[in-house]
Amino acid sequence: MTTRVLKFGGTSVGSLERIRASAAIAAADIRRGDKVAVVVSAMAGETDRLLRLAGGLGHGLGDEETDVVLSAGEQVSAALMAMALRLEGLEAQSFLGWQAGIRTDGPPGAARISGLDASPIRAAMEKGHVPVMAGYQGASKEDRLRTLGRGGTDLSAVALAAALEAHCDIYTDVDGVFTTDPRIEPDARRIEKISYDEMLELAAQGAKVLQTRSAEFAKARNVPLRVLSSFAEPGQSEGTMIMQAEDIAERRIVSGIAYARDQARIALRGLSGAPQSAASVFAGLADADIGIDMIVQSPASESGRTNLEFTIDYRDLDKALEKIGESDAREVLSETGLAKVSVVGLGLNRRADVARILYNALAEQKIGIRTVSTSEIKISVLIENDAVEQAVRALHAAYGLDDA
Amino acid sequence: MTTRVLKFGGTSVGSLERIRASAAIAAADIRRGDKVAVVVSAMAGETDRLLRLAGGLGHGLGDEETDVVLSAGEQVSAALMAMALRLEGLEAQSFLGWQAGIRTDGPPGAARISGLDASPIRAAMEKGHVPVMAGYQGASKEDRLRTLGRGGTDLSAVALAAALEAHCDIYTDVDGVFTTDPRIEPDARRIEKISYDEMLELAAQGAKVLQTRSAEFAKARNVPLRVLSSFAEPGQSEGTMIMQAEDIAERRIVSGIAYARDQARIALRGLSGAPQSAASVFAGLADADIGIDMIVQSPASESGRTNLEFTIDYRDLDKALEKIGESDAREVLSETGLAKVSVVGLGLNRRADVARILYNALAEQKIGIRTVSTSEIKISVLIENDAVEQAVRALHAAYGLDDA
Repeated sequence: MTTRVLKFGGTSVGSLERIRASAAIAAADIRRGDKVAVVVSAMAGETDRLLRLAGGLGHGLGDEETDVVLSAGEQVSAALMAMALRLEGLEAQSFLGWQAGIRTDGPPGAARISGLDASPIRAAMEKGHVPVMAGYQGASKEDRLRTLGRGGTDLSAVALAAALEAHCDIYTDVDGVFTTDPRIEPDARRIEKISYDEMLELAAQGAKVLQTRSAEFAKARNVPLRVLSSFAEPGQSEGTMIMQAEDIAERRIVSGIAYARDQARIALRGLSGAPQSAASVFAGLADADIGIDMIVQSPASESGRTNLEFTIDYRDLDKALEKIGESDAREVLSETGLAKVSVVGLGLNRRADVARILYNALAEQKIGIRTVSTSEIKISVLIENDAVEQAVRALHAAYGLDDA
Repeated sequence: MTTRVLKFGGTSVGSLERIRASAAIAAADIRRGDKVAVVVSAMAGETDRLLRLAGGLGHGLGDEETDVVLSAGEQVSAALMAMALRLEGLEAQSFLGWQAGIRTDGPPGAARISGLDASPIRAAMEKGHVPVMAGYQGASKEDRLRTLGRGGTDLSAVALAAALEAHCDIYTDVDGVFTTDPRIEPDARRIEKISYDEMLELAAQGAKVLQTRSAEFAKARNVPLRVLSSFAEPGQSEGTMIMQAEDIAERRIVSGIAYARDQARIALRGLSGAPQSAASVFAGLADADIGIDMIVQSPASESGRTNLEFTIDYRDLDKALEKIGESDAREVLSETGLAKVSVVGLGLNRRADVARILYNALAEQKIGIRTVSTSEIKISVLIENDAVEQAVRALHAAYGLDDA
């Protein structure tokens, strides 16, 4: 008998029909002998609708009352899922974040789970009930509702699975993690097994199937993760297993190609060479909550000075340039309309020809590279937005991912 | 300085514009020097939408999970109202039922407020904040969400006002309580002051402006009530004051005419005369949660037997006839398409010609009376649905309510 936490995302609970189909999946697991708890997102589109209501009164994410509005989305879907499970002949009961003992700290709209007292959920399961927890939410120590930010329901599910020492099955509208986006490369294949680290890089580099925070949490707490589709018949989606690297017998050099459009590049030329100079640039951006990526630093032609480049989300560009205005750079350049394409794989660090393959493949397509950045298990290039699809297809083929 | 609980119903928070208009009313009260707490219903139409979702999974009112779904409606509007109050330059904070210390007992969908620890609300007010409480909801002692049934938000508001020793202003889409429905009788006039008891009878007899339970609660706890419109400019709606009869200086014989369509009449002929026979009929109907009205009992022609008649909501007819099938009546008749028209006034019990005026007025209109039932302060007649408007207008004139 396995204890499983099943997480159903927005499209998996997007209508009463989808809720019933997802409930049937949970029921099939239970009939196979598993113990099951369910965690749900808001119905697809509901969070946006609620955000628009708050926006109409000038309040957005990060506001305490916006969190109260948004929490209603998962509240409704959790109760509806409990009803659908009863139609499957099961006893089921909804749990809001605060009822499930999820305590948070951190700001509204992006709270962290600071504690999870799973005893109410465990008590329900011991009575043979199926607990259905509203994802994405918890309560602060002052008993105010808080939401967990993007991907928060994945995080709720992984945290509950960790507390219950359970497997965590993330149900979505795709049949697992793919070697790249099948909408761009029809030959993209489902990955059967992938390491937490590769999943983390794919998520960080733009693959949307799982959020970084939940992959990190799963890795840290060693929660066996699976990503699979709720749109298949119960038991028919094989999905992707996410596990420790050492548990994967047969490893590929490259696991997948991710991409993220709409990047902006900022180049500071002739920044003073003192270390605190670059540090104060990044401190200013961090204050403004702007994420930094693909940092490249090189000596400037002027002695004692340095050139610093990095990428950010283009929507943060104005805010970033304002912050950077306070720096001592001789010149600040910026460029938008860029995209990041990343090759991710545990084998990258063992293969010297990884970079050669990348440069060759893109050169053959006449795709210019702005910036390259590497880590142990990924290599990212910054290119023009328009070349994304061509680059993804070329790299998918060049690293042998097209082969079955 | 008066402490006021302002209750805004569904149409008063039916859109972002309406929410802002209602917030402006609260802000005007505060600028006049009052201390204010706000209680809100779900946005108009939202409760129906949520009920349809639950209904699509075979769950209706009276189910624990339906209460979780429905509670989301007031949760959203409470947070939105807090945002709108901030736009008025006020500090405001939403409180869900459980956060406001509202404890309930009784079944889901029709819970009773068993306790209200107003200290969180009071603490917010002492800090100069405007607390906005989600109406219609509370939590059971097991910390499960519960809703309070029809008119539940009025009840929440009156209970909070009682706890705060405050006045309770019920904002709706009409300018108070009228002598009858202005859609039927254009000469209907706003009543300036009315006693709790008259208000109770008007509500029980079909006037929809205030629910019976909240009028009862207000009377029992001596909460000064006012019904007024949120659709007027702040301070422009005079509304109707509801108070103890002895506080009303100038009393009319008749205060208003109420009506309720869609009644059904059940007649049991030749029921055994033993007292437990009628009692068991009513016990069966009570078990099935069917409300009984206008009971008339008279001796049957067969010695030792009795005839029993009463009215119910026609939607309960099938269920009621099934229950009555177990009785020992010789014959059971039922009739639908009926309506109840009621004349309500503190002066009724002092005037012998009240019945004469009623019979005369209806006879002149050739409206047949099925059943008459009276109390200290009201007289109700059962007539055909089709004659309701004619009867209301005739009685409104006959009792002198058309006169300014």
